[in-house]
Amino acid sequence: MTERIKEILSWYGSDNPGTLTNLARVLNHGRLGGTGKAVILPVDQGFEHGPARSFAMNPPAYDPRYHFQFAIEAGCNAYAAPLGFLEAGARDFAGDIPLILKVNNHDSLMDEKDPDQALTGAVSDALRLGCVGVGFTIYPGSSHRLEMYQQIRAYGEEAKSHGLIVVIWSYPRGSGLSKEGETGIDVCGYAAQIAAQLGAHIIKVKFPSPHIEQDAAKKVYAAEKIPITAGSERIRHVVQCAFNGRRVVIFSGGAATTDEAVLNEIRAIHEGGGFGSIIGRNAFQRKKPDALRLLDTVMKIYSGGAR
Amino acid sequence: MTERIKEILSWYGSDNPGTLTNLARVLNHGRLGGTGKAVILPVDQGFEHGPARSFAMNPPAYDPRYHFQFAIEAGCNAYAAPLGFLEAGARDFAGDIPLILKVNNHDSLMDEKDPDQALTGAVSDALRLGCVGVGFTIYPGSSHRLEMYQQIRAYGEEAKSHGLIVVIWSYPRGSGLSKEGETGIDVCGYAAQIAAQLGAHIIKVKFPSPHIEQDAAKKVYAAEKIPITAGSERIRHVVQCAFNGRRVVIFSGGAATTDEAVLNEIRAIHEGGGFGSIIGRNAFQRKKPDALRLLDTVMKIYSGGAR
Amino acid sequence: MTERIKEILSWYGSDNPGTLTNLARVLNHGRLGGTGKAVILPVDQGFEHGPARSFAMNPPAYDPRYHFQFAIEAGCNAYAAPLGFLEAGARDFAGDIPLILKVNNHDSLMDEKDPDQALTGAVSDALRLGCVGVGFTIYPGSSHRLEMYQQIRAYGEEAKSHGLIVVIWSYPRGSGLSKEGETGIDVCGYAAQIAAQLGAHIIKVKFPSPHIEQDAAKKVYAAEKIPITAGSERIRHVVQCAFNGRRVVIFSGGAATTDEAVLNEIRAIHEGGGFGSIIGRNAFQRKKPDALRLLDTVMKIYSGGAR
Amino acid sequence: MTERIKEILSWYGSDNPGTLTNLARVLNHGRLGGTGKAVILPVDQGFEHGPARSFAMNPPAYDPRYHFQFAIEAGCNAYAAPLGFLEAGARDFAGDIPLILKVNNHDSLMDEKDPDQALTGAVSDALRLGCVGVGFTIYPGSSHRLEMYQQIRAYGEEAKSHGLIVVIWSYPRGSGLSKEGETGIDVCGYAAQIAAQLGAHIIKVKFPSPHIEQDAAKKVYAAEKIPITAGSERIRHVVQCAFNGRRVVIFSGGAATTDEAVLNEIRAIHEGGGFGSIIGRNAFQRKKPDALRLLDTVMKIYSGGAR
Amino acid sequence: MTERIKEILSWYGSDNPGTLTNLARVLNHGRLGGTGKAVILPVDQGFEHGPARSFAMNPPAYDPRYHFQFAIEAGCNAYAAPLGFLEAGARDFAGDIPLILKVNNHDSLMDEKDPDQALTGAVSDALRLGCVGVGFTIYPGSSHRLEMYQQIRAYGEEAKSHGLIVVIWSYPRGSGLSKEGETGIDVCGYAAQIAAQLGAHIIKVKFPSPHIEQDAAKKVYAAEKIPITAGSERIRHVVQCAFNGRRVVIFSGGAATTDEAVLNEIRAIHEGGGFGSIIGRNAFQRKKPDALRLLDTVMKIYSGGAR
Repeated sequence: MTERIKEILSWYGSDNPGTLTNLARVLNHGRLGGTGKAVILPVDQGFEHGPARSFAMNPPAYDPRYHFQFAIEAGCNAYAAPLGFLEAGARDFAGDIPLILKVNNHDSLMDEKDPDQALTGAVSDALRLGCVGVGFTIYPGSSHRLEMYQQIRAYGEEAKSHGLIVVIWSYPRGSGLSKEGETGIDVCGYAAQIAAQLGAHIIKVKFPSPHIEQDAAKKVYAAEKIPITAGSERIRHVVQCAFNGRRVVIFSGGAATTDEAVLNEIRAIHEGGGFGSIIGRNAFQRKKPDALRLLDTVMKIYSGGAR
Repeated sequence: MTERIKEILSWYGSDNPGTLTNLARVLNHGRLGGTGKAVILPVDQGFEHGPARSFAMNPPAYDPRYHFQFAIEAGCNAYAAPLGFLEAGARDFAGDIPLILKVNNHDSLMDEKDPDQALTGAVSDALRLGCVGVGFTIYPGSSHRLEMYQQIRAYGEEAKSHGLIVVIWSYPRGSGLSKEGETGIDVCGYAAQIAAQLGAHIIKVKFPSPHIEQDAAKKVYAAEKIPITAGSERIRHVVQCAFNGRRVVIFSGGAATTDEAVLNEIRAIHEGGGFGSIIGRNAFQRKKPDALRLLDTVMKIYSGGAR
Repeated sequence: MTERIKEILSWYGSDNPGTLTNLARVLNHGRLGGTGKAVILPVDQGFEHGPARSFAMNPPAYDPRYHFQFAIEAGCNAYAAPLGFLEAGARDFAGDIPLILKVNNHDSLMDEKDPDQALTGAVSDALRLGCVGVGFTIYPGSSHRLEMYQQIRAYGEEAKSHGLIVVIWSYPRGSGLSKEGETGIDVCGYAAQIAAQLGAHIIKVKFPSPHIEQDAAKKVYAAEKIPITAGSERIRHVVQCAFNGRRVVIFSGGAATTDEAVLNEIRAIHEGGGFGSIIGRNAFQRKKPDALRLLDTVMKIYSGGAR
Repeated sequence: MTERIKEILSWYGSDNPGTLTNLARVLNHGRLGGTGKAVILPVDQGFEHGPARSFAMNPPAYDPRYHFQFAIEAGCNAYAAPLGFLEAGARDFAGDIPLILKVNNHDSLMDEKDPDQALTGAVSDALRLGCVGVGFTIYPGSSHRLEMYQQIRAYGEEAKSHGLIVVIWSYPRGSGLSKEGETGIDVCGYAAQIAAQLGAHIIKVKFPSPHIEQDAAKKVYAAEKIPITAGSERIRHVVQCAFNGRRVVIFSGGAATTDEAVLNEIRAIHEGGGFGSIIGRNAFQRKKPDALRLLDTVMKIYSGGAR
Repeated sequence: MTERIKEILSWYGSDNPGTLTNLARVLNHGRLGGTGKAVILPVDQGFEHGPARSFAMNPPAYDPRYHFQFAIEAGCNAYAAPLGFLEAGARDFAGDIPLILKVNNHDSLMDEKDPDQALTGAVSDALRLGCVGVGFTIYPGSSHRLEMYQQIRAYGEEAKSHGLIVVIWSYPRGSGLSKEGETGIDVCGYAAQIAAQLGAHIIKVKFPSPHIEQDAAKKVYAAEKIPITAGSERIRHVVQCAFNGRRVVIFSGGAATTDEAVLNEIRAIHEGGGFGSIIGRNAFQRKKPDALRLLDTVMKIYSGGAR
């Protein structure tokens, strides 16, 4: 156990040894194992956007085994997916990579002003599939948010008592926010705070923009001169918003884009003291060699061996 | 146990031996037993459309025993029906044919923009009636879909822990979709993916049309040149959408029509690598000899002995 | 045990001996015991319409003991009432007549477009009061119907596991139907089918009119030439709609009317193969001697001793 | 045990000895003990109308101990209050007077067309505080009524199984009724019937006015010539509506008014065969000596020693 | 144990020794220990208003350990915070200061006419984190209030049976009230009464203004000449409204303001017989030395050593 991992574990003083063990499994796995940085592969887009929109540009990715294999080869810290995808590979890859069961999901066959997710997995499913924890999406800004907070509270209580970790995707969205506001720096910081207060061990938020959504926040950012011009500054602020850096916060990029755009964000996350990335579409929507090459560079940046 | 059935069972690595046994019972029963193809008789139309509209054209079908007997004589792999119909024959035909309890149902005495179903059976009912599994309808595209996903999640967890299989009827419908969109190729593929992610062992979807419903999907189908002109191509695509063919996907035809129309669809399903059919109204709304003759041809097509 | 009762019990092959025993208790009790016909006294109108509208024309009927006594003297097969009415007499008349606890109820102090009922009794109440079963109203055609189906599903599961029978009052009503449609022949048949599929042992529907409510049904009734002109023909059709006569279907008449009107319906039910009647207001809203005289004639008709 | 109390207990033949014991405790306590009449002090107005509006005219009544003491000194049969008020005195006055935990409550900081109440106490609270039973308000005529009936059903089942009694405040109110209709004679009688059917041991209704609310009821009251001119006639009718007098029905007066107005209602209740009164604001909103004097006269009327 | 603490404990005669022990822990801790006065530090503003708006003016406060440390140094009676903040320090500061788990929370990423809170912690969480009790916000005046009362009822039942105390933040808000009405004297008194009736051990309300919100209350305040001109008079009235002073009522000030404004309110609370304060933003939004200096004066006022 490296000193850095010991330090990170020390932030979670209320968790039982089972949960700390599973958190250590994530932080000690893969190419970034022991560094305190983490790259997680999430594949719930088949549910979220549909299979063709997710996998047709790289057809092997229709196969659930592809993603287990890819996460292993790329040296990711963990692989996160819905029930069906994990059930379809958990035996074949048992023990090969830490798994996170994404326990709520959402489809896009219906437009909603205020999005919500369905509970699609249980803590007992995570246990029987050998997962290290559960993943849960909340939508701050949606009229369904309070119910979602209550759901993750119950999942968190059960997960922690069984030695699992809790990963929260905190994605502001809904009628309380403008489209631009979903990634605004104040909103991203707030999203990280809510996830931390809800008891998350690992928090995923969007890469923040310099936009400030709320008037009451604008005054404070101006008065206190909070630096948010550079991406790394915004990352540093979001990390501060999550218990002053005492929670693992990782960032997601969104839709597939160019290698360089991805890597620029990675560099900003690394410089800003972020704990890593969740890379989904930018991984499985490239041909495998291209994706492995991109993740190789990502890993190098996070381990300090590349710029 | 044939090699093909062993192969299919190998896809379900997270299920307990009880569930695998029941899946094998379905796949090894009837005239298609051991081939990896399946034809299932479903009779929930008395609930869905009313008794006269369902059975008046073939009055013996008012009797619940008729359908057990028919499924046995036709050599189907399984018979699926609501609580009342199964309770009325499960003792008389105990052990004669695998039974699937359809645990949610819907009537048509009220029009709704966004359809929903009532839970009408329990996992405990399936167990006491000797069923191999439970069947559940979801309506992606309806405002009730998230609640339906949550219901099948809970049923699935209980069913699997008791060694039963889960069959999902994934029928997109509701205010999120146009009428034409309900059978659009993108929507059918998406419906198969959702059912698979929800943990279904067997997935039933409608026979897909070449229509593409969602704008975001249209771009992908065009860019990736996904072949969807021939029925068999669309079938192949839907099967791919369900974990690249690693889930049993069968297709339903809908309202009673001519023998030739039915058989053309069967041929397309067979050629496209589909796993079989669910044939309801086209079975019990014909006089018994006619229906048996039709199913005989269907079985021959699926077993490779007819065109 | 008569052959006819043995035959009827044979239709319920999935029930445990406890439930069959209680079904036999109903069918073997009173003047029609052993004939396979049944007349049940239901008194929930105090709740449904208020006490004065129900009992002021025959004031002894305000007393809950009156109805136990009346059902016994008239030779009914069973007496059905809400919690309060049964609690008020179950000890005094313990063992004298089979009791059915009406576990949901509705009042008329508020108009609703889509009616619903409140759960007012539990299976455990039915057991502690010595009842043979529970009675439950569903309103197909109401926006609350799916929830009602789910409630009776849960009650049915619990009742059957404790050896009780399930009686469903299937009364179509609500915004999905016209007023005339509530007793239309297609709707009554559909209502009987739904109750049967929900697992009812005894089904109560309204006496059907020749009206056909649904367009899709009109075509089928015409095409298949289903005879519905005579009352007895309509009764025969409704009985067919309930598993081809393999479920006990009894009919209710509604508001108090003349003896002759009541008896004409009884004759039609008897001729059409119906299993009997539920007679409430036409019993307790007459002076006791008049009511006993009317029921005497009813019993004679059903036992074949009168026309 | 007096003959009258024995007679009253005989009406509750389905209750266990524990519940009968607690019912006897109420009927045998205080100045009216053994007569079959009862006066109960209810103090939930601090919750319902706010503390200043309830207690400022008699400030000692802000203290929860005041009401225990008052009920004891006045010789009431029981004292009913919400959780907080009972918790604040139950130890000091343990065994001094039968207590009824009012388990649902409502405030007036928000106007509603259709009122509802919150569950604020549990059967387990009633047991740990040494209460003889639970009190519950229903609002027939409100759109929330069915849910309220279901709540008291569950409370009643639990209370009775633990040997507690059930007291229902049946107060028609809501969009189904006119303001005048809330105390109309037909509505009061209906309210008493509903409470009785829901299984109440003691029923509280408002003092009825001669108004008839429902058209269908007007015809019956006219046709059957039900006497409702004198207050005592209306009382007699309401008592009849509650199982022909075989349930304990007591009456509430409402807002504080003159002694003479109160006593006139008491005389009518006594003459009409009512079982007593619930006197709240007319007790604690007078100075203690005045209130004790008023209740002394009330007790004398009910015990036959005054007019 | 001082006489004053013994006296306060005597008001809670229905609580078990475990709960009394935890109440004593709060009242005997810190600089005001044993005086019967209490100052509690609450830090849920990161959740309620977002992290930057809460902590940017004093960045060390982003760190959850800061608040534990501050509450200890300032000599507070207890520290209250949501799940995440307590989990992040409960081990490091175990036994150093009584902790209160704030079990419901609300964010401000969405405007609502009728606010509600999400359940974010459980009684079992409070127990595993070594807390003395749970804190819960209710919003009298909101359309969600009845559901909130039901939630705290359930939490209270569980908490008390496990020996924990219940602290209710009673903050009127919502469509039933004007903005000014939220702190009106009648509304504050009513809010204290509701919390007391719901079974709270410690009640937090806003510092009341002389405004009277409800017409029915205005008449009573005028008729009874209730003194509400001076702040200390209004405090005295609110304390009276909470069971005539037999419940611990403390007051919150709201947004950060000048030292003198804060201290003027503290003096009024002390003179009016209030039990103390909850001081959040006026503590952690000042630099630590300034905040400690302010709280030092507050403590002196409450202990009688300053004006």
